[in-house]
Amino acid sequence: MLNGVTVVEISSFVAAPTAGLTLAQLGADVIRIDPVGGAPDVHRWPVTAAGRSLYWAGLNRGKSSVELDLADPDAHQLVRQLLAAPGDSNGILVTNLAGKHWLSDQVLRELRPDLIHVQVLGQRDGRSAVDYTVNASTGLPLATGPGPAPMNHALPAWDLLCGLYVAVAVLAALHRRRGSQAGTFATVSLDDVAASVLTTLGFMPEAQLTGTSRPPLGNAIYGSYGTELALADGQRIIVVALTRRHWRDLVAVTHTARLFATLEQELGIDLTDDGVRFQHRDLLDAVLRPWFARRTLAEVAAALTPAGVLWSPFRTLRDFAADLAEGVASPVVSLRDDAGIGTVLATAGPIRLPDEPAPSIPPAPRLGEHTALRLGQPPDGSS
Amino acid sequence: MLNGVTVVEISSFVAAPTAGLTLAQLGADVIRIDPVGGAPDVHRWPVTAAGRSLYWAGLNRGKSSVELDLADPDAHQLVRQLLAAPGDSNGILVTNLAGKHWLSDQVLRELRPDLIHVQVLGQRDGRSAVDYTVNASTGLPLATGPGPAPMNHALPAWDLLCGLYVAVAVLAALHRRRGSQAGTFATVSLDDVAASVLTTLGFMPEAQLTGTSRPPLGNAIYGSYGTELALADGQRIIVVALTRRHWRDLVAVTHTARLFATLEQELGIDLTDDGVRFQHRDLLDAVLRPWFARRTLAEVAAALTPAGVLWSPFRTLRDFAADLAEGVASPVVSLRDDAGIGTVLATAGPIRLPDEPAPSIPPAPRLGEHTALRLGQPPDGSS
Repeated sequence: MLNGVTVVEISSFVAAPTAGLTLAQLGADVIRIDPVGGAPDVHRWPVTAAGRSLYWAGLNRGKSSVELDLADPDAHQLVRQLLAAPGDSNGILVTNLAGKHWLSDQVLRELRPDLIHVQVLGQRDGRSAVDYTVNASTGLPLATGPGPAPMNHALPAWDLLCGLYVAVAVLAALHRRRGSQAGTFATVSLDDVAASVLTTLGFMPEAQLTGTSRPPLGNAIYGSYGTELALADGQRIIVVALTRRHWRDLVAVTHTARLFATLEQELGIDLTDDGVRFQHRDLLDAVLRPWFARRTLAEVAAALTPAGVLWSPFRTLRDFAADLAEGVASPVVSLRDDAGIGTVLATAGPIRLPDEPAPSIPPAPRLGEHTALRLGQPPDGSS
Repeated sequence: MLNGVTVVEISSFVAAPTAGLTLAQLGADVIRIDPVGGAPDVHRWPVTAAGRSLYWAGLNRGKSSVELDLADPDAHQLVRQLLAAPGDSNGILVTNLAGKHWLSDQVLRELRPDLIHVQVLGQRDGRSAVDYTVNASTGLPLATGPGPAPMNHALPAWDLLCGLYVAVAVLAALHRRRGSQAGTFATVSLDDVAASVLTTLGFMPEAQLTGTSRPPLGNAIYGSYGTELALADGQRIIVVALTRRHWRDLVAVTHTARLFATLEQELGIDLTDDGVRFQHRDLLDAVLRPWFARRTLAEVAAALTPAGVLWSPFRTLRDFAADLAEGVASPVVSLRDDAGIGTVLATAGPIRLPDEPAPSIPPAPRLGEHTALRLGQPPDGSS
């Protein structure tokens, strides 16, 4: 959908590369520019036995790679030439390289006033921050897990969300520019993303209005019913009832309707209300547990899935990867040949266009693979 | 940036409302359509003392609300009229209402072949799934926390990411339609988002290539150095060294350079390599712990922040909300008057345009507030 759009990305780690990748997966021509030898993420784990970064290979699929000495003013001039290329499909920069005069919006906007320039920041004031420090500062780790110990997430959710907001900003700015020739300078910082998202979802207004912090709930779901249950074969699953229908289906399949009706009557509660299910979750757990404890995973699956109950086993990363490799878990991930790695799981992104051919996104480039090509220079002229 | 663009959203819970909200925060006119009495998310926790949902109020800021009997064919006709409105700023639908014939792409595309229709799904095959069941199925909860117990996240990251991918899909489709008059039908499912993101970040390729699952690491950071440290006053902080510079700064401020140099020499290791820091994280913890254990939070802050070390205290949600309310934590969140709630933290989204006036996003509507207005009907004619 973005064929013909060219994006210059000067980036490292997760957020800015995610923005460029998302645009590349939709057909944009994304040129990632790195310092000679690579940015600090070039060897980031996980790595193959041969030391190739699976992380870098994933985040840079479908991009061109240009390697430049970013301390050299001649390199700055080459980047400027890329950004100054005429036409309304050019003049787009995504970067997390902050605080450099030559990359300041003031300097770059002289090239073309209609530049689309989106800057990724750690803290909004330009100081460094990473996903895990931002997460600690929000209070979320103290509301995660079963007890009072702080628990950081394993998924860099703030980085990923920041990267997608950057992609959104680029596309919204592109829309505006086509209508009005107006350029855009936007910044998206990890701490602003966390503040904004936690405000939107009610975490922050609730803490502000009550003066208290939501407690850690383990695998329960705040304000609704979700629980971890152990099965006869030692497997553990999560069962969720967010809506009346989910709850009705769960009660029906576990044959607990009469028991819950009696409890509702005796206690004067209405378990079709999700807040009430949350408040009485220990009671619900106690009633439901025996049905699950007597059954194996296969038996539970045979009963719950046809009944439309929301549930899943707690599986391992290896289980999920094996399903993806067999092509049974998701059509957007499959095994692909990558000259640097071998046959490896890869994705063209999660946006599916069912009526159109599936996009094919080539593997990540070798670092600097397109330096001469993209800069219109003789090979090896730049590094 | 999206002024003039009109989006019809038929949604509930997090993913689809996040897509519409993101577009509304950039200026789009978003009409959320709900069944009479509201969708299952209308009273979702957190709620105020008076029972108003802070969650709904956050996810629907800046939207119009239309309340319709969605079982009534007349209502379907009203939705169709909204979607059929002429012009290249109309004809955009975001929905998570799957499996309804009247909302099928085939039926809707007869209205206008250039329709932009993005469907949010739980599982890609249309079966129900929610963030927490998808997360359990990926293996991530078994790679979260300090030990073997599965640990779901408190942030519905898959919902949020799905919502942002939907916003990206809408904007990319809008770009394509302006160039070619082509319409777009896209689907984004929670399970495809999880599969795609975990593949891109290397979790899945690593599990596939090694046949093993990454272990849970508590508050350490896979492949780099991050650690939780206890201070003299009982506070707990996270300290991170992702890059050579971070590591150099941390060593300098804690006066551990000579000790680490000796260890590097004796053990034949190079701690400027982030993978080596990860492998030897227990050793690094042991060397660094005493410096932190002797100092209070104020003392640590006074030393670490000027030195540029990446760190943060583990704070509470209440602490963060208090900072936001005082206006010291993020310019994108502030106290706003909301007639239904009072003075409450609210946000216009994390994308900042430093050279332009900050957008003002009105509070969420009352359910059905704009039914007559948006459908061009006499008041109270629809519900």
